[in-house]
Amino acid sequence: MSKVTELPPDGMDLPRFSGIATFMRLPHVTDFTGYDIGIIGVPWDAGVTNRPGTRHGPRQLRDMSSLIRRYNGATWVAPFDDCRIADFGDVKVNPVDLDMTMQRVTDYMVSVREAGVMPMVAGGDHMISLPILRGLVADSGPVGMVHFDAHMDVNDSYFGGSKLTHGTPFRRAIEEGLLDPKRVVQVGIRGSRYDRSDEEYAKDVGIRVITIEEYFDLGIQEVIKEIHQVVGDQRTYVTFDIDALDPCYAPGTGTPEIGGYTPFDAQVMIRSLGDLNLIGADLVEVSPPFDQSGGTAIVGVNLMFELICVLSQARCRQKA
Amino acid sequence: MSKVTELPPDGMDLPRFSGIATFMRLPHVTDFTGYDIGIIGVPWDAGVTNRPGTRHGPRQLRDMSSLIRRYNGATWVAPFDDCRIADFGDVKVNPVDLDMTMQRVTDYMVSVREAGVMPMVAGGDHMISLPILRGLVADSGPVGMVHFDAHMDVNDSYFGGSKLTHGTPFRRAIEEGLLDPKRVVQVGIRGSRYDRSDEEYAKDVGIRVITIEEYFDLGIQEVIKEIHQVVGDQRTYVTFDIDALDPCYAPGTGTPEIGGYTPFDAQVMIRSLGDLNLIGADLVEVSPPFDQSGGTAIVGVNLMFELICVLSQARCRQKA
Amino acid sequence: MSKVTELPPDGMDLPRFSGIATFMRLPHVTDFTGYDIGIIGVPWDAGVTNRPGTRHGPRQLRDMSSLIRRYNGATWVAPFDDCRIADFGDVKVNPVDLDMTMQRVTDYMVSVREAGVMPMVAGGDHMISLPILRGLVADSGPVGMVHFDAHMDVNDSYFGGSKLTHGTPFRRAIEEGLLDPKRVVQVGIRGSRYDRSDEEYAKDVGIRVITIEEYFDLGIQEVIKEIHQVVGDQRTYVTFDIDALDPCYAPGTGTPEIGGYTPFDAQVMIRSLGDLNLIGADLVEVSPPFDQSGGTAIVGVNLMFELICVLSQARCRQKA
Amino acid sequence: MSKVTELPPDGMDLPRFSGIATFMRLPHVTDFTGYDIGIIGVPWDAGVTNRPGTRHGPRQLRDMSSLIRRYNGATWVAPFDDCRIADFGDVKVNPVDLDMTMQRVTDYMVSVREAGVMPMVAGGDHMISLPILRGLVADSGPVGMVHFDAHMDVNDSYFGGSKLTHGTPFRRAIEEGLLDPKRVVQVGIRGSRYDRSDEEYAKDVGIRVITIEEYFDLGIQEVIKEIHQVVGDQRTYVTFDIDALDPCYAPGTGTPEIGGYTPFDAQVMIRSLGDLNLIGADLVEVSPPFDQSGGTAIVGVNLMFELICVLSQARCRQKA
Amino acid sequence: MSKVTELPPDGMDLPRFSGIATFMRLPHVTDFTGYDIGIIGVPWDAGVTNRPGTRHGPRQLRDMSSLIRRYNGATWVAPFDDCRIADFGDVKVNPVDLDMTMQRVTDYMVSVREAGVMPMVAGGDHMISLPILRGLVADSGPVGMVHFDAHMDVNDSYFGGSKLTHGTPFRRAIEEGLLDPKRVVQVGIRGSRYDRSDEEYAKDVGIRVITIEEYFDLGIQEVIKEIHQVVGDQRTYVTFDIDALDPCYAPGTGTPEIGGYTPFDAQVMIRSLGDLNLIGADLVEVSPPFDQSGGTAIVGVNLMFELICVLSQARCRQKA
Amino acid sequence: MSKVTELPPDGMDLPRFSGIATFMRLPHVTDFTGYDIGIIGVPWDAGVTNRPGTRHGPRQLRDMSSLIRRYNGATWVAPFDDCRIADFGDVKVNPVDLDMTMQRVTDYMVSVREAGVMPMVAGGDHMISLPILRGLVADSGPVGMVHFDAHMDVNDSYFGGSKLTHGTPFRRAIEEGLLDPKRVVQVGIRGSRYDRSDEEYAKDVGIRVITIEEYFDLGIQEVIKEIHQVVGDQRTYVTFDIDALDPCYAPGTGTPEIGGYTPFDAQVMIRSLGDLNLIGADLVEVSPPFDQSGGTAIVGVNLMFELICVLSQARCRQKA
Repeated sequence: MSKVTELPPDGMDLPRFSGIATFMRLPHVTDFTGYDIGIIGVPWDAGVTNRPGTRHGPRQLRDMSSLIRRYNGATWVAPFDDCRIADFGDVKVNPVDLDMTMQRVTDYMVSVREAGVMPMVAGGDHMISLPILRGLVADSGPVGMVHFDAHMDVNDSYFGGSKLTHGTPFRRAIEEGLLDPKRVVQVGIRGSRYDRSDEEYAKDVGIRVITIEEYFDLGIQEVIKEIHQVVGDQRTYVTFDIDALDPCYAPGTGTPEIGGYTPFDAQVMIRSLGDLNLIGADLVEVSPPFDQSGGTAIVGVNLMFELICVLSQARCRQKA
Repeated sequence: MSKVTELPPDGMDLPRFSGIATFMRLPHVTDFTGYDIGIIGVPWDAGVTNRPGTRHGPRQLRDMSSLIRRYNGATWVAPFDDCRIADFGDVKVNPVDLDMTMQRVTDYMVSVREAGVMPMVAGGDHMISLPILRGLVADSGPVGMVHFDAHMDVNDSYFGGSKLTHGTPFRRAIEEGLLDPKRVVQVGIRGSRYDRSDEEYAKDVGIRVITIEEYFDLGIQEVIKEIHQVVGDQRTYVTFDIDALDPCYAPGTGTPEIGGYTPFDAQVMIRSLGDLNLIGADLVEVSPPFDQSGGTAIVGVNLMFELICVLSQARCRQKA
Repeated sequence: MSKVTELPPDGMDLPRFSGIATFMRLPHVTDFTGYDIGIIGVPWDAGVTNRPGTRHGPRQLRDMSSLIRRYNGATWVAPFDDCRIADFGDVKVNPVDLDMTMQRVTDYMVSVREAGVMPMVAGGDHMISLPILRGLVADSGPVGMVHFDAHMDVNDSYFGGSKLTHGTPFRRAIEEGLLDPKRVVQVGIRGSRYDRSDEEYAKDVGIRVITIEEYFDLGIQEVIKEIHQVVGDQRTYVTFDIDALDPCYAPGTGTPEIGGYTPFDAQVMIRSLGDLNLIGADLVEVSPPFDQSGGTAIVGVNLMFELICVLSQARCRQKA
Repeated sequence: MSKVTELPPDGMDLPRFSGIATFMRLPHVTDFTGYDIGIIGVPWDAGVTNRPGTRHGPRQLRDMSSLIRRYNGATWVAPFDDCRIADFGDVKVNPVDLDMTMQRVTDYMVSVREAGVMPMVAGGDHMISLPILRGLVADSGPVGMVHFDAHMDVNDSYFGGSKLTHGTPFRRAIEEGLLDPKRVVQVGIRGSRYDRSDEEYAKDVGIRVITIEEYFDLGIQEVIKEIHQVVGDQRTYVTFDIDALDPCYAPGTGTPEIGGYTPFDAQVMIRSLGDLNLIGADLVEVSPPFDQSGGTAIVGVNLMFELICVLSQARCRQKA
Repeated sequence: MSKVTELPPDGMDLPRFSGIATFMRLPHVTDFTGYDIGIIGVPWDAGVTNRPGTRHGPRQLRDMSSLIRRYNGATWVAPFDDCRIADFGDVKVNPVDLDMTMQRVTDYMVSVREAGVMPMVAGGDHMISLPILRGLVADSGPVGMVHFDAHMDVNDSYFGGSKLTHGTPFRRAIEEGLLDPKRVVQVGIRGSRYDRSDEEYAKDVGIRVITIEEYFDLGIQEVIKEIHQVVGDQRTYVTFDIDALDPCYAPGTGTPEIGGYTPFDAQVMIRSLGDLNLIGADLVEVSPPFDQSGGTAIVGVNLMFELICVLSQARCRQKA
Repeated sequence: MSKVTELPPDGMDLPRFSGIATFMRLPHVTDFTGYDIGIIGVPWDAGVTNRPGTRHGPRQLRDMSSLIRRYNGATWVAPFDDCRIADFGDVKVNPVDLDMTMQRVTDYMVSVREAGVMPMVAGGDHMISLPILRGLVADSGPVGMVHFDAHMDVNDSYFGGSKLTHGTPFRRAIEEGLLDPKRVVQVGIRGSRYDRSDEEYAKDVGIRVITIEEYFDLGIQEVIKEIHQVVGDQRTYVTFDIDALDPCYAPGTGTPEIGGYTPFDAQVMIRSLGDLNLIGADLVEVSPPFDQSGGTAIVGVNLMFELICVLSQARCRQKA
């Protein structure tokens, strides 16, 4: 592939505390033409059912992303060398209008898809995965999904009929034919539950749910095999809810559930996804007001970097 | 007046860190009958245009309200002795449905009014003042308002047409005939502005705006006179946005503006309102995620106590 | 069993940030009659030898307990369905009078026992386990105990003769015939030590001490077997000191010791206790001033939920 | 006077973040002989009726005291040049034994007095002023007191008879003939009250209470005159409760009351005391867990420095 | 004047939590041509003698600057309408090389001056004012300076000879002929002192020092007159050290001194400078690690906005 | 060996929150004669390339070290009984002069070595290991090193030629013949990288790098074997960078890298080093401004205690 890359400034040249905070210190662009991967913020939290704050996620993630360097020290993937990647800025949301915002995110993702760009989205609450899938998948047929989370997010509705919250996106996405539930795998599900209906729904439609108990029983290598077996080699989206991790690593989130896995486990699992047929990814639910230290965002941007690495691997293969 | 009072437990008997956190350690009741004043939470922030979190306000205010004792040390008003007051709990909101929540708050306030109770509401963002006024005032004709705030909150709309945000409630209330703009006085207005339209609107409809600059020029005694002159002896509502204060006293709020007055000034101004014909009050915009120390809420509950003192004075006169 | 249950409001109906903060959003009752399990706060820290603050524990635990839902997602126990459970409020302590408070907690626990209720106590510092045992066990003969902690808490005295501190409760309980040391197992003991006398005492009286080193050597399944073997099928109390966990999960505590186990491990161990002959439990040493974020309390209430699940299992068997 | 002074290391020589944290970076001594002023910690909070933590006060005050330099920039007093001053360490308290600790503080202060040293004590909660006065005054006849505080601290008892709490020391001191109530002036009293009995007691025994309302009415120069008039030229103790200040300056305290004066006001008032016949001073109620930033302690050590300046002025006159 | 302005996006259109964080949400440019005012970060703290962290200042100031709107609500100056203003990014510093960084800042300011741009610099520690003045003033003859600060910053050297620290810049600037000491006025000087040499130096060279005591004695209107009288109508630089303010408003700084003025006072004073012959300004010593809440930075960016308003007034006159 | 030991005060006698904060509550001495081990602070951070603050490390470590008791509960080593150990205070640094400070640390370590004392140094940033090695090793021939870290710290230079930063010390030490690279083992290396040159350098000179991936693959017992095999029985230094740990345990550091090992693992590894021929140790990169809670320092002092235990074991053997 011919490369026209933008490299972030070298932290050994320009100090990392310096300069405008863009994702990974990449250029901020508004014209998507020619890019392989676009890093996009969706500063949204009006789908949150308990503690808000994820609207501030993209900005804190950008700030902390200065800590990211050029090479993945474990896989030696160098995504900014291999692909053309930039910070596309934020989708323009309306914090007091759910429907308008859903439409804007969908429209934005249509443009991204039409420009041939693979999106790496930073949330925002988990509801944003729905309009992302609407824009990315549209009527091209359902995709598979690797879903890291403490929660299944397949509730039917909240608060007496609200169909669009951060607890419902994947029920909607399945209903709308955006996701093939038999190619969806959820890793890390746990916590107390309102009732058993989510579990039954997931079973009925064929989602592969790996609870945290099963996760530890299987061991990470078996989990990785299972992930690959479920999603196969068709088009696949990756969604990472930061609350998949134990809250000691990611306290800055709205619905923490104790007893999760570690960032290292997450790194190992994400690194295994480089051979999938990926179409994009998101990392959601970082809520800065609940972690002003930035620690949660530091974890978040490191996982975004891992996701970008596997997206770039997929992209290189797709372009080859 | 015959008294059937509920007194909070004495902090010299039951330690203040102890027990269920209700407002002022009063009983939590659900039947309003026979109460003079009800303290009511509206845990809402979906009208916020920038930093969310006020949905957590009522709970933190309840927690910190244990610091409040029985007598006002400056005026020696003893509201819990003079009136029957309880914690009515929270209005049931739907954080993802603005219209449903507006209706619920309005309905709730209708019940409060019909039960002959004076409401002391803890927000929530400032948008809640609109449904409170809708419920309290209904078609009984416009009321006056003493409005402590850094912002005028009379914008027309946000984000390309959204009419209901925490920046617009009083424009709506005037349009709906709930407020008589000539009997509205705003104290502490300041900060950078989007444009001059709010100022012009206020001037056109006759709101008396006391900017912070005028506030310091006049001096607090003149401001108090001005407040009384504007609202007169007709029915009057009081709304206190915690961001009226300098942010050093109340950092836990969504839209801080530097250069405000002090809590002592606020206490002195509120204490002067005991001779007005009050119908209720709110204290809004305490946002716990931006002040986990609880300091902002400590200021908030102290001002709520001052408001309760003047409400009880008004109530006693009304019942006499 | 005939059920007269009080269910907490559903978080999908009433938002979890809303309402008066009781434990698990259960009703607050003062008449214990007919309850299976009572959740009780003991806001006490005057037994603390280093960093205070646990007197604020019950309130913060109540606040964070809104995050708890109805079902245990791992065991599918639904304690609020299976048992009648309520928030009994706090025992009335006197923060400046140790002896008076010890007596009050003892008396309170006598009433609880006489009402046929199983207590789930939220501390407070670890000294409270002594008056709880005094009230619960009285002269019915010594009970066994599963004790999760970093510290053995069997010191003889502190500061030149003080016999009642949070470092001494179980020495006293053994001396008073409340605990059968041969049926006591301690899990997670670690940290630097003042001297070897505690260790020798424990050995002499027959306490089974599983240090953290042995814990990791044995593996969690062997530890669970060992716990069951030590306490057997006789009456057993469970005490969980939050400092049993690694401080990264529970920084809000007075005497953190690095190198502990995880909340997941704690969950797995507690879940195994459902077949024991349980008489009550406590969770102690959550100190909010040292973790204003509430993260420690979130862990604490989740473990309280796990304890309530196994108490309810035991209760159902006892009532059958 | 012949000078044998110990000067703190110059911050322009040894960086202020460096070295063992003693008060004002002075030598830590255990032999009091020959010293004019001893700075002494009393790490105690078992007299606290609400939020604990002042036991950690002396250590945080020592840490922050590195910010203090050699000269008072307003009065150009140079206390470390004019007097021999050292850090005497902490009085050995027993956090679980009130009576033992009261005795130890008293005994310690007897030694200090017998060594001819003027004490500058850092608390600790306000109860410590009682044993300090017991040790300092003993049977030499009652002294006067300048008392900066939000609270009068002349309650009779708490929690059904507890006579020794941080709300009662000065009632006890008056009863014991340590203080002459007619020579006691309290500056900054405010906040909600349990009842009117304190006020009546103060009036009965003749304490001059300057409420915060009167404080602002009189203006600071009149307050200073009033202070001097009340205490006169007889022996006088100074006690500064950090909660005298508005909580925005000193959030790290157990019983904040909004609406206080500023640190600048406190500085001006303290500086005026250099012509009194001072016998010692304390600064109490700094509670580090409620302000981990150290901001409250920074205010505290600056006021301690002001107190040391006036103590040194008094000392120089006494030695002249 | 012909206007080619860049306006920040309207917060009523694009939410303020959204988008890349540039100063005041202005475009980030690297070609200075045609700009009236450039906002420039100097992320530097290697001149700090006590607590570091100001290298993170520009980034946090950018983040918080989203709170700034278009008009000054007190003076109705609209700087982004009246002038062409942009975010120029950060000067490239080397955190481990003082001399290299001094040179780079100087060179950068030469370019700024040569491009005909007025700089509004965000620090960084106060040492940066020296290379700014070197670049701006060069050999065009000494300028006047309005200096808001708690400290005089005219020490000769630190730590046995170090001539370049944040305590020495203006001694150097005077020695180098960049500042005319007789046209320098310092407002708010206070705190304990190492010795009297700074004071004597200032007196000798003719700096007008307004201590905080004199500040409160004179009153703000007299101080404003004095400022104007000292600097006159010749070329003048403005430097604002955030520690000029009382630390309750600006805890996030390295060398807090209690007893300062308020942000409102600072606003009033800055607003009076619009008629001076200004050449640039800086705002320094915001240290994010000591205030992760961002409160200090919120004050900082509001004062930057006030400074930009007066720079734009001066600029308009100069261009007229 | 004849013992003249100084024991820290017993926390069961003198409360741990009490007294002057020295390391482990040991005496602070300035005459090194007769000591086996000296605990020494180097409050330095001017070698930091990103986030500063480690200059405040020694003070916070001293504060938190009160939590350490007399015996190691796992190995029952009692270092303060077996060796003569004291707090030697801080090396006098000049925060604005790198070269001067490097020389001072070197000179200080020469004295320590000449006094026959084994140093346990608390940083400070990692650059301080270079002057420590210069002073300790001098021309006695290269030593081995056990290096716990997330980073290799063998960069050649930063920022266009700066040879002395916290990213370069061990490249310099190898170049200067202080370290034998073939006897250096690094444990826990991970994170994104600037380039591959460090890795190649390490390979070329023969450093044994155990990445975190290899660490988890090998298992801790194999890692311990590998460490012993690499360093052998010749003279060996130990350096522990707190960022070797996962950031959830040590957020207070400048360059956190997710995915590290636990403090328990670190304890087990350090405890295995007691049979090595140790010459000293350091623990570096604790940065208090990024963890004001002190949690990172609590981990730090516990690991310092483990290091002191193995140093004392080595010392006893050397003296035997």
